[in-house]
Amino acid sequence: MIGKMVVPSKDQIVSAAERIAFGIHRTPILESAFLNGRFQTSLFFKCENFQKVGAFKSRGAVNAVFSLDDEEAKKGVATHSSGNHAQALARAAALRKIPAYIVMPDNAPRVKIDAVKGYGGIITFCRPTLEARESTLQKVVAGTGAVEIHPYDNLKVIEGQATAAMELLEEHPGLDIILCPVGGGGLLSGTALAAHYFSDTTRVIACEPAGADDAFRSFKSGKLVLSVEPKTIADGLLTSLGKITFPIIRKFVDDIVTVKEESIIESMRLIFERMKVVVEPSSAVPLAAVLENKIDVKGKRVGIILSGGNVDLSHLPWQ
Amino acid sequence: MIGKMVVPSKDQIVSAAERIAFGIHRTPILESAFLNGRFQTSLFFKCENFQKVGAFKSRGAVNAVFSLDDEEAKKGVATHSSGNHAQALARAAALRKIPAYIVMPDNAPRVKIDAVKGYGGIITFCRPTLEARESTLQKVVAGTGAVEIHPYDNLKVIEGQATAAMELLEEHPGLDIILCPVGGGGLLSGTALAAHYFSDTTRVIACEPAGADDAFRSFKSGKLVLSVEPKTIADGLLTSLGKITFPIIRKFVDDIVTVKEESIIESMRLIFERMKVVVEPSSAVPLAAVLENKIDVKGKRVGIILSGGNVDLSHLPWQ
Repeated sequence: MIGKMVVPSKDQIVSAAERIAFGIHRTPILESAFLNGRFQTSLFFKCENFQKVGAFKSRGAVNAVFSLDDEEAKKGVATHSSGNHAQALARAAALRKIPAYIVMPDNAPRVKIDAVKGYGGIITFCRPTLEARESTLQKVVAGTGAVEIHPYDNLKVIEGQATAAMELLEEHPGLDIILCPVGGGGLLSGTALAAHYFSDTTRVIACEPAGADDAFRSFKSGKLVLSVEPKTIADGLLTSLGKITFPIIRKFVDDIVTVKEESIIESMRLIFERMKVVVEPSSAVPLAAVLENKIDVKGKRVGIILSGGNVDLSHLPWQ
Repeated sequence: MIGKMVVPSKDQIVSAAERIAFGIHRTPILESAFLNGRFQTSLFFKCENFQKVGAFKSRGAVNAVFSLDDEEAKKGVATHSSGNHAQALARAAALRKIPAYIVMPDNAPRVKIDAVKGYGGIITFCRPTLEARESTLQKVVAGTGAVEIHPYDNLKVIEGQATAAMELLEEHPGLDIILCPVGGGGLLSGTALAAHYFSDTTRVIACEPAGADDAFRSFKSGKLVLSVEPKTIADGLLTSLGKITFPIIRKFVDDIVTVKEESIIESMRLIFERMKVVVEPSSAVPLAAVLENKIDVKGKRVGIILSGGNVDLSHLPWQ
């Protein structure tokens, strides 16, 4: 506890790293001489696109599932998600050999449904509204006794996500800045806490699409602004901050900047072309902020978390 | 010397690795649980797509340029190439602060020309025929006194390319098989020699597009068959074997298999989707051989060299 907030402690994050080590990748950190030259800086890309299920979400999901005691765990876990968290939770539950109940909208892409099924997830479909998703999830939880694991507003999930920045700072101590995309704020909360505990001089700056700028507006106004009809190609960043993530972000994040859609697409292509890695649009948002000169990176050492790589390769946005 | 062949020695390859370490990346080796499960094997992908200039060619180019004595080096180096070797040689020469004279066909893509210029290469254009390229190169060499560095039929280039498999075997000793694409045979010669010297039980199998199967036919007939009107998407594999590479390949390579174009494209997409890395079509040829069941990999530990990642992202072949 810090003030009235519930905040994972340094020890809890260290324990999370130990807990999940068996079930996640310690992902590589890549550099690009071209990008460093172009922006006159030193960028260190933490490649969570190489993570299990292709996204950082595996960290939080494995930590949440393996933090349950046997009694809690035996009836399984549940969530509503059509994205990376659904796959990550299904996989984490499979590792523990417990059921994962996933509520998905009935218009979810076939490939996402198949991926969840591939990890053994038990899917309940609902209408594609937030109300339907939440009420269906409550019914599933009531019917199964499963533990709900929220995609980001969950302390164990935040602890898990913190381990990405923790690894980045272990390998590159004393970074001047870490840039991180923000959607619901799970990755951002964890990143800010990792910097606070393991490298207090490192500034954490969140990067958000201008078309989904609820975190920016919440941060600047000090009041939780909900995401209403967000519009961005960065489909991992559509959600609002949560009751747990917002206070952590207010206290531990140094700044939030917004970026244009064109910059996200240009940055995504730069990452494909110059880093030779496949990223989803959300991952390109921090480099877009560098591209737009929103952050002074000249001569600094800057970590960037590439959050995931699950993108439809048949419809890349520059084509 | 082995018999009448000129063959780089174990010590020469070890020296090459030391010589080039300052100027190349030790590239990561990635694995995919999905692909391992699908093919019931253990695949280890050596990511030369992350290499400097985006291809293994940097290894050979840096070794060749830095093996010259000061007297030889001062007038520069020269080659004809419109591909990765051109960029790699220009960059290696820039590292040594000597000129690189690159002969390119006048229909070379703008992006390749700009890349060579970006590394400071001095370009001479010629008509897009092999005869014009060779005669133009001879004129450039005569006029400048530069040393010709052949893209593959050069012992120092072969030594350099050998270091990729050497690193792979250092990190994964005793691999059962290494799969390697073959064009002119520089990477394949080096890979076969590295296996011979550092892991004698490792079989090396070359993989070639059926539409450019000159190495396959040369290997099977024992006579050097030239590549005539090859047709494949794997544009790095169009060339014929050389006078130096062919004898090394005959003696040290265990087998050569050919693959269909559809398999190359399917494998390339699998690598993008499942490994989250960007590869050029040539890099996908070995996985295509696994996909076509041309090689028995079940239960084995198999290294695959992803040769490069320079691909036109506006025209991916599955689109």
